[in-house]
Amino acid sequence: MSNTQDLDLHRIRLTSPFWTGYQALARDVVVPYQWAALNDRIAGAEPSHAIANFRIAAGREQGEFHGMVFQDSDVYKWLEAVAYLLCRDPDDALERAADEVIELIADAQQADGYLNTYFIAKAPQQRWTNLAECHELYCAGHLFEAGVAYVQATGKRRLLEVCCRFADHIDAVFGPEPGKRHGYPGHPEVELALLRLHEATGESRYLALARYFIEQRGTQPHFYDIEYEQRGRTSHWNNHGRDWMVRDKAYSQAHLPIVEQTAATGHAVRFVYLMAGVAHLARLSGDEAKRQACLRLWNDMAQRQMYVTGGIGAQGWGESFTSAYDLPNDSAYAESCASIGLMMFASRMLQMEGDARFADVMERALYNSVLAGMSLDGMRFFYVNPLETVPRIMPGNHAYDHVKPVRQRWFSCACCPPNIARLLTSIGRYVYTQRDDALYVNLYMGCEAEFERGGTNFSLRQSGDYPWGERIELEVLADAPFVTTLALRLPEWCAQPRLHINDEDVGIVPDKGYAHLARRWQPGDRIVLELPMPVRRVGAHPSLRHASGRVALQRGPVVYCLEQADNGADLHQLALPADAGFRLLPGDGVLAGKAVIHSEGVRRIPANGDALYRYDAGAQALQRQPLVFVPYFCWANRGEGEMRVWVDAC
Amino acid sequence: MSNTQDLDLHRIRLTSPFWTGYQALARDVVVPYQWAALNDRIAGAEPSHAIANFRIAAGREQGEFHGMVFQDSDVYKWLEAVAYLLCRDPDDALERAADEVIELIADAQQADGYLNTYFIAKAPQQRWTNLAECHELYCAGHLFEAGVAYVQATGKRRLLEVCCRFADHIDAVFGPEPGKRHGYPGHPEVELALLRLHEATGESRYLALARYFIEQRGTQPHFYDIEYEQRGRTSHWNNHGRDWMVRDKAYSQAHLPIVEQTAATGHAVRFVYLMAGVAHLARLSGDEAKRQACLRLWNDMAQRQMYVTGGIGAQGWGESFTSAYDLPNDSAYAESCASIGLMMFASRMLQMEGDARFADVMERALYNSVLAGMSLDGMRFFYVNPLETVPRIMPGNHAYDHVKPVRQRWFSCACCPPNIARLLTSIGRYVYTQRDDALYVNLYMGCEAEFERGGTNFSLRQSGDYPWGERIELEVLADAPFVTTLALRLPEWCAQPRLHINDEDVGIVPDKGYAHLARRWQPGDRIVLELPMPVRRVGAHPSLRHASGRVALQRGPVVYCLEQADNGADLHQLALPADAGFRLLPGDGVLAGKAVIHSEGVRRIPANGDALYRYDAGAQALQRQPLVFVPYFCWANRGEGEMRVWVDAC
Repeated sequence: MSNTQDLDLHRIRLTSPFWTGYQALARDVVVPYQWAALNDRIAGAEPSHAIANFRIAAGREQGEFHGMVFQDSDVYKWLEAVAYLLCRDPDDALERAADEVIELIADAQQADGYLNTYFIAKAPQQRWTNLAECHELYCAGHLFEAGVAYVQATGKRRLLEVCCRFADHIDAVFGPEPGKRHGYPGHPEVELALLRLHEATGESRYLALARYFIEQRGTQPHFYDIEYEQRGRTSHWNNHGRDWMVRDKAYSQAHLPIVEQTAATGHAVRFVYLMAGVAHLARLSGDEAKRQACLRLWNDMAQRQMYVTGGIGAQGWGESFTSAYDLPNDSAYAESCASIGLMMFASRMLQMEGDARFADVMERALYNSVLAGMSLDGMRFFYVNPLETVPRIMPGNHAYDHVKPVRQRWFSCACCPPNIARLLTSIGRYVYTQRDDALYVNLYMGCEAEFERGGTNFSLRQSGDYPWGERIELEVLADAPFVTTLALRLPEWCAQPRLHINDEDVGIVPDKGYAHLARRWQPGDRIVLELPMPVRRVGAHPSLRHASGRVALQRGPVVYCLEQADNGADLHQLALPADAGFRLLPGDGVLAGKAVIHSEGVRRIPANGDALYRYDAGAQALQRQPLVFVPYFCWANRGEGEMRVWVDAC
Repeated sequence: MSNTQDLDLHRIRLTSPFWTGYQALARDVVVPYQWAALNDRIAGAEPSHAIANFRIAAGREQGEFHGMVFQDSDVYKWLEAVAYLLCRDPDDALERAADEVIELIADAQQADGYLNTYFIAKAPQQRWTNLAECHELYCAGHLFEAGVAYVQATGKRRLLEVCCRFADHIDAVFGPEPGKRHGYPGHPEVELALLRLHEATGESRYLALARYFIEQRGTQPHFYDIEYEQRGRTSHWNNHGRDWMVRDKAYSQAHLPIVEQTAATGHAVRFVYLMAGVAHLARLSGDEAKRQACLRLWNDMAQRQMYVTGGIGAQGWGESFTSAYDLPNDSAYAESCASIGLMMFASRMLQMEGDARFADVMERALYNSVLAGMSLDGMRFFYVNPLETVPRIMPGNHAYDHVKPVRQRWFSCACCPPNIARLLTSIGRYVYTQRDDALYVNLYMGCEAEFERGGTNFSLRQSGDYPWGERIELEVLADAPFVTTLALRLPEWCAQPRLHINDEDVGIVPDKGYAHLARRWQPGDRIVLELPMPVRRVGAHPSLRHASGRVALQRGPVVYCLEQADNGADLHQLALPADAGFRLLPGDGVLAGKAVIHSEGVRRIPANGDALYRYDAGAQALQRQPLVFVPYFCWANRGEGEMRVWVDAC
């Protein structure tokens, strides 16, 4: 296996207006709002109590724990996002707030290294007794991710030390040795986090512990059953009734050892968090069985269970996968966090494989499902990302209980907003992959990044108007010539990419979806990649009946949709003829700066009357109607209305 | 209001092979099987315990009550079906068994007239404390229906006397007077049953009690809340968690007084049982406000919330209505019992209004949703009747938890099989309506029926091969000429009916969907009604997006569907061109005797490959494929496979 390095966020600066805009939203709106929320300062919102829980656990105030068993993770995710912000934008006040939170966390940590405010403040006797349902290791994982990010951002080791003490405690409690607990978390996350902690500290015990959690998972006798008996058959989730999380082992991908699993199943966020860890471990350890499991499960997810928006998890029940080619549009779950986790899984696969198909999916999720999770003003969020909504029928039909027609400000289970925040603030890490064989350019966005390869320092300056513009320019900045291979991704949505170096045409020979350019680079070399972006009609696999007879529009990486605001109600009555052309127009209002697609469609004109059913319905009259498609990620920014991604083809 | 009389089942004998076949199934398969089930004699099935509950309540044996709180109603529905069978087919053994059950029921009845085995055997202190959630009055209603049917069938008054004692007890407990309980049932049924009991006995108190239950429903302060507080806020349905049946008053149509309700809402069976009673009362009492409520709620149900199969209740949650034009096909609930209740509601509306639109819906439900509820061999049942199934994706998707791809032998909540049994055995009651203004012929089926109008006795002998044949013959049998009006229904699915009397063409002037023939009838007069039955493409209201761009096929009253057995998998890839013709062929195998439709359709041919999404999908190749449509009510009789009613039009 090749060595692969994450790019330090200090070494990349975004310049793309598209992405600096999002980062400014994260800095100016999302992170401050979440800070207020964590501190219960949002009037009218259900209090988070997350900071208060730490104060109680630290003994700084009296009170009771409130919130979810995984409430701590909201604080950790906030800290992680803050760390990413601080990499490029020093902000004394923000750093001081973060440092104070870190001191509070350190205060709450127990003498033996244990750290979880629910169990410290509310159920100290129940530590480590319910891995299946509770989230101690999940929260630990988010702590570790924050600790690694914070030391990398600021050089301050205080939080990392908290992490290591807790990781050492976990290592003392769990493992194959007699006397240790032979368990693993119901909600994966600690695995990928331990591997990040391992890479940040060099501590091999963290690698071994991650491997233990991964390899122990799904073995028999089953740990969930063992601990269930040991704790007297109690369930944490009394309000949901009973112990289905314990019994339904596939829900948490613990029904079989991972290397024996064949299909993406269960809770979608758990799946992608787990697989991000497995892929990371497979690369670090060169473990072919784990690599094959990653490839197999990736393929099942991406080839059979993923929405065209990059959403995963088709059903509200258990926020989970269903089965191959079952992707209902209006009752989709497609959780924002799941698409973020999908990007994490994809980036690990990309590091391991150097294959653009992982970047293609990562990009699809990013520009569609992930961005749709947040309103354009950064103030409201979708937990669930359907591909079709008809608000009129939602209140009466409980199949849509989990779906909201407009974004919400906050959630009692507030996992998605902080996850979007840490993704937006760290998006630079997904742009490049540094492997031995090449420096991979995965995502196109205006940025400047510094690299050191083979003893040479150089920079790449990307520019262009991606995802709207077709032309990407990469300028090589260096003091002297140097030899390296640059691998430029050739997106799967682009039929005829063109490549020029210093205005000379370069023939493209794709290798796993990348154009590998091995040469002696001169300072000032300019690479121009042209990615023609005609509007394309996307069709689905024949077994995907929810898209049967329909098309979705995609331009570049951006999937489009119809909204009632532009096209009137009853979007299901609209159809796009096979010969319709497309015009790109700039959006206006909240859509300013976005490319909007205009086309000529038709609307089915029904027979008159109120009759529910009519005879001799064969030849329905059609009336021409201009159609306006807007980027899916921009939907529901103009009030409540119908939306539809898959449009009838005619 | 006109007087309207139900036809005594003694006075009608079916001759139609279609319906005598079903009645033979009821007699030879369904009723004996249910008898065995009620007595826990079905190997491998969960015991019903229904008869045992009566034995325990009667003190004949020791033991505990088992089953649903409404388990008694299974026995009553069985008895009612037996009564209908005995009207035409004397069967000493069956009658003896019924008489023994009736003695057992009488034994279980308490000294004060109270009768419900759950409360007698298990919770004697809780009688009448939880009308919202429990089913004491519901069970009473089924008892009354059985008692009326049994005395009419056999002349034996024993069960009717039990009914009257219980009704008198209920009348002593409930009513507007101080000291009585000001309540009404969470599950309607007793209202329509009390009106039947009133008509059978002439007792006006039963009419008044039915009116009280109907008028008290949904008034404030709300009875559900009052009794909830009185019993200490307990819920019967501990296993479902909490008290939603108490809180969600629309679930049982108790959110508003009935005359103020505007939309069909809540549990579909409750709705139609309730409305059958309201319509009956409106007719008996000439109450215009109730009549208007019936018309308004009927229209909302039939014009906005009914499947093309006559199924109602679009969602599994609460087995309930959703909202206007929301009729998902694959997750439909469309409970068999709801369509049976719809027929009951329809028949009362028909009696009140003499308008064929009620018969049209009644017929639609009968030949599609109701018959689909039972397998062609009478041995298996659907509780839920979807309009589209893809068995492959059902196990992994909890949206389909309530849907079965094949019929089951029995259910722990066994309401549907006995309901189908009593419907099939009493179908003759729906054929004619006797009103002052005319003798209405609502349903066409081979039968001989005797009437007495204006002092004259005569018979009508219907023949024909309905629903397959287009020609219906009615022969007048009488000793002497007589004057009356015969009103022949002109089905809404028939564009050009033709009418002949004694081979002479008679012009048709439809009046509320009936051809009224007022004349002096001669013995031997022959009416021939020709109802051309071309295969018709049915389209849906433009707001019904689940049928958008699709058609259903209907011939006569029978709705058709595609099945995988004839057409291969991926039925969503098939489409029916607007110019495709149809050929009728006789079915074979289990479909022998049924008309099957052959047509020329197309199958979309996808691009090759495993890719989930493909670009440039505008022009999909089409391949000609013969299509075979079978009657919807025959689906799932040839093993598990895909099924689809609404087929893409192209």
